[in-house]
Amino acid sequence: MNTNFDMIKWDEHGLVAAVAQEIVSGRVLMMAWMNRESLQATLDSGFATYWSRSRARLWRKGEESGHRQRVKLMEMDCDGDAIVLQVEQEGGIACHTGHHSCFYRKWQDGEWIENEPVVRNPIEFYKAL
Amino acid sequence: MNTNFDMIKWDEHGLVAAVAQEIVSGRVLMMAWMNRESLQATLDSGFATYWSRSRARLWRKGEESGHRQRVKLMEMDCDGDAIVLQVEQEGGIACHTGHHSCFYRKWQDGEWIENEPVVRNPIEFYKAL
Repeated sequence: MNTNFDMIKWDEHGLVAAVAQEIVSGRVLMMAWMNRESLQATLDSGFATYWSRSRARLWRKGEESGHRQRVKLMEMDCDGDAIVLQVEQEGGIACHTGHHSCFYRKWQDGEWIENEPVVRNPIEFYKAL
Repeated sequence: MNTNFDMIKWDEHGLVAAVAQEIVSGRVLMMAWMNRESLQATLDSGFATYWSRSRARLWRKGEESGHRQRVKLMEMDCDGDAIVLQVEQEGGIACHTGHHSCFYRKWQDGEWIENEPVVRNPIEFYKAL
């Protein structure tokens, strides 16, 4: 595995935060986690591959929904504990809820308000549901 | 404290990931952490206030450098474990290294390469150095 991965400050679980940003719009799409294996898989495949903490396994983003993220640029922050992935979002949907971005709620007058429409009903792209 | 903070999935340390994005440029500036106190301080002051894990105290961003972040919009993701702060970055510098963004290194040919200039030498804005 690439020794330059050592510049990343992996946390106590061997993970680094990964923020996916849509390159064409600048929209922040989601935040997830990567371990060394998922970072290597991202580089090898060219598609964002995360580590699913809830499922404790490699998560090839879009493996079920088809909404893969083609990585165009990868950036690391000053202290090496976060990465930005500049991606092309296939299908224009990053979120399992069917929203373009996972950040579809905004804070307004002391409440979280839904701020973006559902692009497509997730039942249409999660066959297993 | 606002009960709608309960919609956030605070981690085992009582923290949530916070991504600051420059509203005018779309540039992702930094990733840091917030606890309930820092979120409340952000709302009260209108300026991004984080929880410094290394110093274990409230971190009023810009308190030393003057590079405060005025929060224009706050967004929460689908599972409530990350927040995006859309900010105006005072001084045009988010990073303690003097770069515009903390994500000033990119992955290229198997290495992390510095990809953005230093806007201003940090010795000029950290009086204590």
